[in-house]
Amino acid sequence: MTEATIIDGNRFSAGLRDRIASEVHALRETRHITPGLAVVLVGEDPASQVYVRTKHKRTVEVGMESFVHTLPVDTPEDELLTLIAGLNKDPAVHGILVQLPLPRQIDAQKVIEAIDPAKDVDGFHPVNVGRLASGGEALIPCTPFGSLLLLRDHLGDLSGLDAVVVGRSNIVGKPMAQLLIRESCTVTVAHSRTRDLPDVVRRADIVIAAVGKPGMIRGDWLKPGCTVIDVGINRVANPDGTSRLVGDVAFDEAVKVAGAITPVPGGVGPMTIACLLRNTLVACARQHRIALDKSL
Amino acid sequence: MTEATIIDGNRFSAGLRDRIASEVHALRETRHITPGLAVVLVGEDPASQVYVRTKHKRTVEVGMESFVHTLPVDTPEDELLTLIAGLNKDPAVHGILVQLPLPRQIDAQKVIEAIDPAKDVDGFHPVNVGRLASGGEALIPCTPFGSLLLLRDHLGDLSGLDAVVVGRSNIVGKPMAQLLIRESCTVTVAHSRTRDLPDVVRRADIVIAAVGKPGMIRGDWLKPGCTVIDVGINRVANPDGTSRLVGDVAFDEAVKVAGAITPVPGGVGPMTIACLLRNTLVACARQHRIALDKSL
Repeated sequence: MTEATIIDGNRFSAGLRDRIASEVHALRETRHITPGLAVVLVGEDPASQVYVRTKHKRTVEVGMESFVHTLPVDTPEDELLTLIAGLNKDPAVHGILVQLPLPRQIDAQKVIEAIDPAKDVDGFHPVNVGRLASGGEALIPCTPFGSLLLLRDHLGDLSGLDAVVVGRSNIVGKPMAQLLIRESCTVTVAHSRTRDLPDVVRRADIVIAAVGKPGMIRGDWLKPGCTVIDVGINRVANPDGTSRLVGDVAFDEAVKVAGAITPVPGGVGPMTIACLLRNTLVACARQHRIALDKSL
Repeated sequence: MTEATIIDGNRFSAGLRDRIASEVHALRETRHITPGLAVVLVGEDPASQVYVRTKHKRTVEVGMESFVHTLPVDTPEDELLTLIAGLNKDPAVHGILVQLPLPRQIDAQKVIEAIDPAKDVDGFHPVNVGRLASGGEALIPCTPFGSLLLLRDHLGDLSGLDAVVVGRSNIVGKPMAQLLIRESCTVTVAHSRTRDLPDVVRRADIVIAAVGKPGMIRGDWLKPGCTVIDVGINRVANPDGTSRLVGDVAFDEAVKVAGAITPVPGGVGPMTIACLLRNTLVACARQHRIALDKSL
């Protein structure tokens, strides 16, 4: 029995970061411009702190400027909005990311809409969401865009393929569906209210799992030979008291049926930060009206 | 053999326009506010002239103010943008619609993005497209919203139903898919690149036909008992030299298989203008921070 090809997100994202680093170097040499990313963290959520540290490290590695703003958990909303207004105006800042989730006293949607769409490297501002849907020049949410890059790298042209997106979040499921429609896939969005989910998944040449439930999608739900992108990152306990990360797909089963699959960790995860850096570079280039290498 | 229920868009839209007229009357009596709709027509396309005349007539009928601006076909883009800037500022104008298509010298996307999103009663501005996708307070494109009202009226709760949207235009297909995802349908977007379209359509409890090809969707593509919303409005020639309007669905075949179907004309068509009036009323109420009757 042949096992599925493992789609290596670590390798692919390292290559993407190398290409970004070259472009950043060229921008500095030829135009004296250094792309800058501002990350805002409110509070001390441990997972968020890890994400922000990793983003900072990767940003500096590709030669960009990293500005990290850490605010106390009880920061009033208007103080955060004032900070964002300043970052919107700051010419050294080309990308702005506010780490989610935010504390209760802050309306996340209001914060997202306060970011200049041209600097919205998360791609969550309605203007970017709208442009992604209607075909304009958008900044695209990082996780679905990273998933698309892996799909294109593995499958080439996606036109006419049946894709099923399981999950309808604003961060992954919905923008992923838009991207796959743009690629001319026949796209089905399934979710918790879907009847007979296994049957729906079984139709798919491409399965995107983005539900946040460990191992929910089973091997016998898959069409033999399909490509599986597992966006889930779930921490589960081991019998010995330690813990590990698993995806939304039962990997050990799926690997025997699928044609290709992303592992967790090491699949989509590393693509998200690489695409954040890519978005910062793209935002910087657009703000300065500079054309970038097409491969980005 | 029982035939499908005919979903009567004329009757439903007349009822909706009555409810709108009552709200308009109440707004004027209690608040001294009259909702106003500005329609801009560039050039003399005969079909567009008919649409604009009908919109004007319906607007006046429900007691709203109608402002029709007719510009010559060679109007420069900046002149149109100046007119829109004026309408954006005009407190008597709560809704702005620029009739499409526009002449070649004018960039339609630029015009759409120039309209204040709060007055964008077509729902085509990226901010409204984005809010529809991410769940914010949007103005929703009229034809898909009208289709949804007919579906809800006929089926009640749509949660868990399989819906197939054939066509991926920005005006109908994509916003229709977003609305059906919001209603918790399992939604498939199919289009010209879809493999085995009959088979995809055959899965659906709800079929939305929005491709602009007369009679393309055949009776034997339908699941018995399904609900068919035919958005197509195609003019075809009769053997005697006259012409008639037909939809994207082969009606005579479909009516023998479906559980319910919208006719063409008299189905979705009249809903579009009724929803335009509804959007103008909603826009006016939001601009004045007035709550409306929930049924609108």
